[in-house]
Amino acid sequence: MKITLIGSGKLATQLGLRLVEKKHTILQVYSRTLQNAKKLAIKLNTNYTNELSNIETNCDICIVAIKDDFIQKLSNKLFFDSLIVHTSGSVSTEVLKKYKNYGSFYPLQSFSFEKTPNWETLPILVYANNESSLNRLQRLANSISNNFHIVNNQQRKQLHLAAVFANNFSNHLFHIAEELLKEKNISFDLLKPLIIESVQKIENTSPKNIQTGPAVRNDMETINRHLEQLKNNDNLNQLYQLFTQLIQNTHKK
Amino acid sequence: MKITLIGSGKLATQLGLRLVEKKHTILQVYSRTLQNAKKLAIKLNTNYTNELSNIETNCDICIVAIKDDFIQKLSNKLFFDSLIVHTSGSVSTEVLKKYKNYGSFYPLQSFSFEKTPNWETLPILVYANNESSLNRLQRLANSISNNFHIVNNQQRKQLHLAAVFANNFSNHLFHIAEELLKEKNISFDLLKPLIIESVQKIENTSPKNIQTGPAVRNDMETINRHLEQLKNNDNLNQLYQLFTQLIQNTHKK
Repeated sequence: MKITLIGSGKLATQLGLRLVEKKHTILQVYSRTLQNAKKLAIKLNTNYTNELSNIETNCDICIVAIKDDFIQKLSNKLFFDSLIVHTSGSVSTEVLKKYKNYGSFYPLQSFSFEKTPNWETLPILVYANNESSLNRLQRLANSISNNFHIVNNQQRKQLHLAAVFANNFSNHLFHIAEELLKEKNISFDLLKPLIIESVQKIENTSPKNIQTGPAVRNDMETINRHLEQLKNNDNLNQLYQLFTQLIQNTHKK
Repeated sequence: MKITLIGSGKLATQLGLRLVEKKHTILQVYSRTLQNAKKLAIKLNTNYTNELSNIETNCDICIVAIKDDFIQKLSNKLFFDSLIVHTSGSVSTEVLKKYKNYGSFYPLQSFSFEKTPNWETLPILVYANNESSLNRLQRLANSISNNFHIVNNQQRKQLHLAAVFANNFSNHLFHIAEELLKEKNISFDLLKPLIIESVQKIENTSPKNIQTGPAVRNDMETINRHLEQLKNNDNLNQLYQLFTQLIQNTHKK
């Protein structure tokens, strides 16, 4: 397909590279910053612009892969007859409703400039305002991944919220663990085999079935000792208590 | 070495199997429950007992791999001249101080009966009350793993606490995500590639360097939308706010 790519960030970069790999044609890259547009366009061997009025509108799909806050602003200034989609997990497709054909094309992964993600298993969540647009997005998704799903706005928002818990917050727990270890001159490397083993387990079973630790065993002696260890850190003390309560509520049922 | 193994749970089972694999001799398995002692003894091709008075004391090392609460009680009833160690992450070695040679032998991993852990990389954290005991534990550790460390009681306690944050609490976050998705009929499978990718990243970089999400970008619009989505769940609302605050505190510095 012929694609206009709006954006030059991590997602735009990895998605662009994958689309080219799969023989789609990127007609043009747009970025507010000419230098960024040029940088990605060179990688994708295509044209670039930083002028909204120069955006190539004669395409099969225009993919808007920019920061959430700018999607509405930018889309208000564009004119497309063909299909326009954004790649945001949390913005409603309704911000594009002035267009005849619009939707979302949401690759559920955290992207970086350097690392090529595993596209084969990468979930592509798609939605559109009509059947023919949905078909077109499905064809595009199936050409770059084996993990295609139709997900409406409400579901996509919930996925984004769930990802914040499962991904952003768990990463902060790893940071907390690293800091706790630093206090006693212990390398965070010691915890990595445990973390990796545990995450491998949820590939085949529900997290609920593999919950371990003092909270789920109702081991009050250990819980109180841990709270004592955290007595000089109000926030971590509060976080520990809240998790203990949540885990105990879950496993009482 | 000649080893007496006290306990028949997950850790005792996996450790016993590894010791036998590495040509150590398990002299005997003890468990309060005769059936459990027998079950593990058959796997290890050795003797078993459920009588404290029958425990084989003529060994190089006695490994006490039982529930935290029972370590002190049981050790008060045993008589050993040789080295005795427990495998607990959170119990001080001082509960064994009536012995001439005592210490800890703590394999930092979450064990199951079915799954053989990756022993090569499994951290073995060791401590003893004298040099010769420490040397003996070091030799034992090096014979079953390539990841040996000397860790004192304070450090081991801190590791155990850090593991609760990094492992137990993050697993509960995965459970929360699964429940949020269930509410909207979405499979938790959709989140797994994201979770796995993120955990793979911390093998090579500090979690602090890869923090993503609305909190670290200070994206108040998304944060408020998420809190609105959680308005009927006080606990999750509170947890979301606490994490947002912790992440923002960390990344302000």
